[in-house]
Amino acid sequence: MDHIWYREWLFTIPSCEIPKAGDYVVYTVGVYSVVIVRGDDGKVRAFHNSCRHRGSVLCKTKKGTNPKLVCPYHQWTYELDGPLIWARDMEADFDVTKHGLKAVHCRNISGLIYICLAGEAPDIEPFVATSARYLAPHDLENSKVAFESTIVEEGNWKLVWENNRECYHCAGNHPALCRTFPEDPHAVGNSRDGVLASTQNAHVARCEAVGAPGARVEGPHGEWCFVRTPLLRAAESYTMDGKVAVTKPNSTLPFKDAGSLLKYSYPASWNHFLSDCSIVFRLTPISPTETELTTKWLVHKDAVEGRDYDLTRLTEVWVATNAEDREVVENNQRGIRTPAYEPGRYSDIHEGGVIQFVNWYASVLSGAIAASNQAAAE
Amino acid sequence: MDHIWYREWLFTIPSCEIPKAGDYVVYTVGVYSVVIVRGDDGKVRAFHNSCRHRGSVLCKTKKGTNPKLVCPYHQWTYELDGPLIWARDMEADFDVTKHGLKAVHCRNISGLIYICLAGEAPDIEPFVATSARYLAPHDLENSKVAFESTIVEEGNWKLVWENNRECYHCAGNHPALCRTFPEDPHAVGNSRDGVLASTQNAHVARCEAVGAPGARVEGPHGEWCFVRTPLLRAAESYTMDGKVAVTKPNSTLPFKDAGSLLKYSYPASWNHFLSDCSIVFRLTPISPTETELTTKWLVHKDAVEGRDYDLTRLTEVWVATNAEDREVVENNQRGIRTPAYEPGRYSDIHEGGVIQFVNWYASVLSGAIAASNQAAAE
Amino acid sequence: MDHIWYREWLFTIPSCEIPKAGDYVVYTVGVYSVVIVRGDDGKVRAFHNSCRHRGSVLCKTKKGTNPKLVCPYHQWTYELDGPLIWARDMEADFDVTKHGLKAVHCRNISGLIYICLAGEAPDIEPFVATSARYLAPHDLENSKVAFESTIVEEGNWKLVWENNRECYHCAGNHPALCRTFPEDPHAVGNSRDGVLASTQNAHVARCEAVGAPGARVEGPHGEWCFVRTPLLRAAESYTMDGKVAVTKPNSTLPFKDAGSLLKYSYPASWNHFLSDCSIVFRLTPISPTETELTTKWLVHKDAVEGRDYDLTRLTEVWVATNAEDREVVENNQRGIRTPAYEPGRYSDIHEGGVIQFVNWYASVLSGAIAASNQAAAE
Repeated sequence: MDHIWYREWLFTIPSCEIPKAGDYVVYTVGVYSVVIVRGDDGKVRAFHNSCRHRGSVLCKTKKGTNPKLVCPYHQWTYELDGPLIWARDMEADFDVTKHGLKAVHCRNISGLIYICLAGEAPDIEPFVATSARYLAPHDLENSKVAFESTIVEEGNWKLVWENNRECYHCAGNHPALCRTFPEDPHAVGNSRDGVLASTQNAHVARCEAVGAPGARVEGPHGEWCFVRTPLLRAAESYTMDGKVAVTKPNSTLPFKDAGSLLKYSYPASWNHFLSDCSIVFRLTPISPTETELTTKWLVHKDAVEGRDYDLTRLTEVWVATNAEDREVVENNQRGIRTPAYEPGRYSDIHEGGVIQFVNWYASVLSGAIAASNQAAAE
Repeated sequence: MDHIWYREWLFTIPSCEIPKAGDYVVYTVGVYSVVIVRGDDGKVRAFHNSCRHRGSVLCKTKKGTNPKLVCPYHQWTYELDGPLIWARDMEADFDVTKHGLKAVHCRNISGLIYICLAGEAPDIEPFVATSARYLAPHDLENSKVAFESTIVEEGNWKLVWENNRECYHCAGNHPALCRTFPEDPHAVGNSRDGVLASTQNAHVARCEAVGAPGARVEGPHGEWCFVRTPLLRAAESYTMDGKVAVTKPNSTLPFKDAGSLLKYSYPASWNHFLSDCSIVFRLTPISPTETELTTKWLVHKDAVEGRDYDLTRLTEVWVATNAEDREVVENNQRGIRTPAYEPGRYSDIHEGGVIQFVNWYASVLSGAIAASNQAAAE
Repeated sequence: MDHIWYREWLFTIPSCEIPKAGDYVVYTVGVYSVVIVRGDDGKVRAFHNSCRHRGSVLCKTKKGTNPKLVCPYHQWTYELDGPLIWARDMEADFDVTKHGLKAVHCRNISGLIYICLAGEAPDIEPFVATSARYLAPHDLENSKVAFESTIVEEGNWKLVWENNRECYHCAGNHPALCRTFPEDPHAVGNSRDGVLASTQNAHVARCEAVGAPGARVEGPHGEWCFVRTPLLRAAESYTMDGKVAVTKPNSTLPFKDAGSLLKYSYPASWNHFLSDCSIVFRLTPISPTETELTTKWLVHKDAVEGRDYDLTRLTEVWVATNAEDREVVENNQRGIRTPAYEPGRYSDIHEGGVIQFVNWYASVLSGAIAASNQAAAE
């Protein structure tokens, strides 16, 4: 937790979830509780969810709207951008200006809110710039959450990632997803040889011609990646019949079969952006053997349920896929518990993405440990 | 646990709960289980609830009546005052006189049973003497338990005390209690300046004139306190309309508006004694983040439910207040979990009692640690 | 766990539970999960339940039948006797012959499957030879499981054994069992003086005359024991009226009142073998204060429920006895938790078996610790 989750930038929520001033969401990771709140100026900020008096949580519910942030214990009252403005019956020498809420690093990146709990946050500018280019056609600020689901998988968060970063298991486990998503690792560049399928190259060219970037691009430390891939048989969305799930598109793309813009950013999120909708996944470690997965389906903010989309049709493929992934992850977790387990060999063709994730993890952790050792030595 | 709960005197039950010989209650705190039992001689004693043979618990239920204490495992049988009197088929050289139950320090203090788990118990005589004077009008031996409630608060026991020792939070959280209980810290001497309201002084004078002491008095180490305070608008009891809850009084006080005799004794209990009833609160740590709170409403032993009192009317204010306190304590516990928490400043006016509790705790703990260190050094 | 459960031979299941090729049972103890499976050659084997690829469990359910063992994650496929035969899209230099399942020591001992998780298994030949002689009349391979029950007792596994190894508690706790089972410790040789009742000697002589050994015999380290004892009043089985529970006998014994062949083998099992049925008990530690007890009632494989036996009649005595034992064990566990507990004296007459168990445990543990120390010193 210290070296990854309390240090890296973490995706929390799409900004369209808190559209108005005073709207807030409480995000919890490990021992931290953070209030993400939109200010009177429209800007989204993040604060530690703990009163500067006796430390009570300020926001008790996971989501809500408040004109000010008022502590439920003794009613100390803060502005939406942090300063303390009222504390009853405190002594004359009490300085309210020194008791504002403690801020947490927070960035609204093309409609996705990221926070960082570290004192000094890692450089996120390359990711911000790339997101701006790749996500522009998907217009996330004009979206709304059509549905969300949260499940807790009984597996370590790294197993959830290892499972996410390969489709070797898809044929045997994901009948619904395999109707539209290409199992071929070359379709997304997940093979160890880095080769991309010719269909992928042709698709990217077609999308870029209309201003939607799609070439595979990775972060400087392998910590994030974008790549646009066509779906099978010119499918338009992750539906059972391959047709769009939402008739009012949630992108500016001029054709429906734009495939999926896949994005991941370690350690907290992967996403799929399609012509008609976007699907954002957020992963939160609960314990060494439990991981929470929250999935949100975003559609255009003016799309109307029943008219422009049917909720079951929109969500059924990934609801099923998440449940199937949960089962394989849990079996994986149960199986590696035995002292008889020794890691086996990966398939170079199918499991290049797993190897990439493991390398990223090992590199971050060894860097952090080296830094700790150096600090201790000084 | 070692330095406080296994060392200090702890309130357990009102003695009226076990009126007859053989009546017992099992009290559990941390790893200890204690049988509190009234003997054939009418005296209340406490024993470790573990058979001297294989260690099974003797009393399986929380409460009951037995002519002897019989182990459920192999039926070894003990007198109510401890000695082993029967053990089947033991060898001729087995000495029953060496296998009596192990006693725990136990005192019946004006109708309230206190125990101490330490080898050597701290001096309790000043508390016994003060209790005799202050509790005499409340006649606890002639009471009965009209109702009891147990809740588990997800908060450390010290947070429960910090919350109890101030009424700064009352206005924002306790609408029912605030109808009768004075939020003003000077009413009970909870302000850091120690000033008492003139209403309080007048009330004490009126009570002392009829033989009911009420002046604020503290234990030699701040570990207990008694103070009698008038309720608001001459209210008689903690009811929604301020009138008595029990028409048959549970005190010898000659007027109904006698206010409340507040008492606390760290670490296990606070109480309210009124003209018509008494309310005793017992706190037991369950884990570092869980505390059990048991509340008992005592009325005159001859009061009849439905005729002399209505149970809802008697209990609703404190049932609600306990639930409200539970919520603020739980929010406090959740909020201080974050590494971003740093203790804020207390209000001198409202939170003098909190400061007093924290000082008591720090002093007991530092004393105990110093004693441990010295013992280790020797 | 390391010194006992991961080192000694453990009873797991009767072999009649997996009669056909491909039948398997998953047995879990501590951090280990083991597949016990019958091969195409009819032989029973045990393997660690973890794929050699990413470590997923192979068998997800507790019981089933499969022609091959196929990993649910990426469908790597193993023969029933262990070798890997298929792994999709692995590189040319991947050697399947080096990725067979990891075997666990496994013996079918007269119809009872034992495994051992240690690298090198302790000598089990004396137990195998004695079992062959004592169990021959009970024909376990031609049995079936008529009923099984699993309960979790909130007590350490050693307390479950201490309770099992004495009948001092029977009179006060087991009304149903005491109708047929002799409480007298001399009936089974459980008294510390080792004396056997004359009734026991006469009974053994009668059984041995028809080829059924019954004299008390112990393993070289006290780790197992067989002894045949008559039931009270010539009872035939553990039923409420003492008559047989199954009219089609599950033994070759020529008389119904053959008593019970008692067997235990530390640390995982005790058994009762009667003329009409066999009852096998398996104990598995779940945590320091939780023990799982699985009981299986075996009858002749051709016995038909409703015709040859009534399930309630067959099982009610031991279902009740297990529940009663659970209660005393849980009270024992709760009672010894207090620091005030000190072990009391055992009854030499009744608790010789407890003393024998404690000696066995102390001897195994001190041997293991000495071996560890020596290894550390080298």
